[in-house]
Amino acid sequence: MLAEKNSNPLMNKERLEMFSDGVFAIAITLLILEIKIPKHEALEHTVGGLYGYLKHIWPNYLAYFVSFLMIGIYWSNHHHMFTFLIKRTNHTFNLLNILFLMTIAFMPFTTAIFGDYVLHPEYLDAATTAYTVGIMLPQPAVLFIFLYGKYKKGIFDPNLDPSFLNKQMLKLLIAFVLTGVALAFSFTYPMVSIIMIGFSFLMYFMAPDMPVHKDETSA
Amino acid sequence: MLAEKNSNPLMNKERLEMFSDGVFAIAITLLILEIKIPKHEALEHTVGGLYGYLKHIWPNYLAYFVSFLMIGIYWSNHHHMFTFLIKRTNHTFNLLNILFLMTIAFMPFTTAIFGDYVLHPEYLDAATTAYTVGIMLPQPAVLFIFLYGKYKKGIFDPNLDPSFLNKQMLKLLIAFVLTGVALAFSFTYPMVSIIMIGFSFLMYFMAPDMPVHKDETSA
Amino acid sequence: MLAEKNSNPLMNKERLEMFSDGVFAIAITLLILEIKIPKHEALEHTVGGLYGYLKHIWPNYLAYFVSFLMIGIYWSNHHHMFTFLIKRTNHTFNLLNILFLMTIAFMPFTTAIFGDYVLHPEYLDAATTAYTVGIMLPQPAVLFIFLYGKYKKGIFDPNLDPSFLNKQMLKLLIAFVLTGVALAFSFTYPMVSIIMIGFSFLMYFMAPDMPVHKDETSA
Amino acid sequence: MLAEKNSNPLMNKERLEMFSDGVFAIAITLLILEIKIPKHEALEHTVGGLYGYLKHIWPNYLAYFVSFLMIGIYWSNHHHMFTFLIKRTNHTFNLLNILFLMTIAFMPFTTAIFGDYVLHPEYLDAATTAYTVGIMLPQPAVLFIFLYGKYKKGIFDPNLDPSFLNKQMLKLLIAFVLTGVALAFSFTYPMVSIIMIGFSFLMYFMAPDMPVHKDETSA
Repeated sequence: MLAEKNSNPLMNKERLEMFSDGVFAIAITLLILEIKIPKHEALEHTVGGLYGYLKHIWPNYLAYFVSFLMIGIYWSNHHHMFTFLIKRTNHTFNLLNILFLMTIAFMPFTTAIFGDYVLHPEYLDAATTAYTVGIMLPQPAVLFIFLYGKYKKGIFDPNLDPSFLNKQMLKLLIAFVLTGVALAFSFTYPMVSIIMIGFSFLMYFMAPDMPVHKDETSA
Repeated sequence: MLAEKNSNPLMNKERLEMFSDGVFAIAITLLILEIKIPKHEALEHTVGGLYGYLKHIWPNYLAYFVSFLMIGIYWSNHHHMFTFLIKRTNHTFNLLNILFLMTIAFMPFTTAIFGDYVLHPEYLDAATTAYTVGIMLPQPAVLFIFLYGKYKKGIFDPNLDPSFLNKQMLKLLIAFVLTGVALAFSFTYPMVSIIMIGFSFLMYFMAPDMPVHKDETSA
Repeated sequence: MLAEKNSNPLMNKERLEMFSDGVFAIAITLLILEIKIPKHEALEHTVGGLYGYLKHIWPNYLAYFVSFLMIGIYWSNHHHMFTFLIKRTNHTFNLLNILFLMTIAFMPFTTAIFGDYVLHPEYLDAATTAYTVGIMLPQPAVLFIFLYGKYKKGIFDPNLDPSFLNKQMLKLLIAFVLTGVALAFSFTYPMVSIIMIGFSFLMYFMAPDMPVHKDETSA
Repeated sequence: MLAEKNSNPLMNKERLEMFSDGVFAIAITLLILEIKIPKHEALEHTVGGLYGYLKHIWPNYLAYFVSFLMIGIYWSNHHHMFTFLIKRTNHTFNLLNILFLMTIAFMPFTTAIFGDYVLHPEYLDAATTAYTVGIMLPQPAVLFIFLYGKYKKGIFDPNLDPSFLNKQMLKLLIAFVLTGVALAFSFTYPMVSIIMIGFSFLMYFMAPDMPVHKDETSA
């Protein structure tokens, strides 16, 4: 009878991992669809023909490279989080994950905008704004995942040291604020935003922090 | 010899879960492809340039958000159903699931129609009709899954209380009828349909009912 | 030392199942991308506006429905085959499966051709030819899978009765020949092909044969 | 306390396999999207109507066939590598795999370029260059995977004979150099490159080498 009352039970995390892997894999592979094949008629007006076209779209290659790595690193960190931090899931946690995946699946759109318009000075600001928004959106989503996992028992490994979780959330918050600054710059000084994103990108390469457990710190 | 006669044997549900996860993950990620990147020529005639374009297509963002959550919640409920209710599958049940997945994979189409035409008063009715049909189609498909699972032994957990299944099917039927009402309104008063869908959308956030077992009710 | 010589070792089938599920899931979901969203300018020349357009493209819905079920049934049969018949895989068997998946992934193309041109009398023959080819291609691919599985030890369940495999291959051969006849008709009497495909489609709904084992027949 | 310092811990390889399978499955299935459905207006100017169009695009079918097999064989070899060589993964190895997947997901783009322009003599050189680049990119990526696996303990099976790994890397290096030669030819004699790629394609059909273990060679 009690079981009936618990309308938000804990479930195994395996299918959430599989579903997330699916969305990551599709979002990352869709990036290539944003590099367009030229039409025959368009080539006739392109200096250098097909070679000229293929060289001319180099920002699309760069955006593909950066966004592929970005989504790939998010996947690797998600993998890391579900290996070391998360034990089970429930309906609410599923929804928070879907919110996070929604921000990941949005990246091919902002990436394509950036790749298509970064070389057009009159649109550089808007293209940078779009790209920065695309990079910013997953950050609060991950923060919500941490906040809910800290508040709701049974999701995260109970042995995690609370100070470890606080440190992770502080890091996320700092990243979020910095991306916000980059966003503010994008409207007037887009090159500043691009440089900031380039630097932050280097941070993404670092392996995520290993969890600290309660018994380890008391040791 | 008997085994040969049973031409519709029960099978493990794992691959059906994996296949379903795949279709869910792809349908949800394809939603982003329906938000179009503007062509250079189109921007020259757009007020406000690229910024103007990115603001102007806000209904596409909203449709992306709503449909991503909708498909995500259907996935979470499917997950819940296969965790707590369904034990095995057979060829017929595979086909019913494929029918259900067909209605899920249809959503990116009706979502795109809605996002593209909701701001055009002369097409608001048709766009709303299309979107309502997209929301309605999965409902009878889930109902068929329940009906077959109730009728055919071995698919559902045999310990499930029949009254629990009846309650679930009643809920689905009510949702189906309400969506039918919204569909009827869409032809003449599309705003009524949109408000109805908005409210029903809130219902989707609720965690699905936990199953009641026979022994629990007799306790 | 001997191990080194065996350059085509047997491997677990799990990853082949997962990869196949992925391709099936993507091919089936891509079908929706072939139903095009109308452009604003196009609607202005369409009788009945958006409603008119959505009604006018009904063959696309039908083609979506038929092809989704077709791929879904192929998936269900593949599932059945890997559950009851196939035990392990090797490099060659992987390649034969990839050949089969190639024919499945080709269906969204022939489906789109059919949906777009079936209502245009001058293109009905070519559209039907394309669709029939799309349906025919997987049949020899499955036949190759059976032939290799019969010839190469370790792939199929060794307990399978050889007469069962022969019966399956005979069935496949008959289906292949019938589709060939439908293909021949498509060039001059496309309606005959469509009716033949419609009938064969009903056959696909039947659950696949259960395997017969050696000990069962000797019993 | 020590665990905290190890910021790049080893993890199970299962999710990396699943994610890779997803990217392979999507990249391979996306190939069909590069064969375009003709628009009604375009057909009116095509000799032979829809039949003429479907015949005229034969290089697209060939490119689909070749690239599907190519990606499929890369998948089969990846499967083989993770079955027999790789034991675990870490953050860096995840990133190297993502780099490799990035080159696989790039193939639908270069394939489409080749299929669309190979029959246009004025673009044959550029189309061949693009296709050769697409074939070359995964080769150094696999080489990096081997180099890191050889250098970092815990990723590869510790029992692997070092001479086996050296032989694999030598093979990869030779393939890379040969593709580089084909690339150099593509600018002036594209037909030479096409013939070279055709031959190398036959090599891909061979099953990958079985690993040699330390104890086996000492036997």
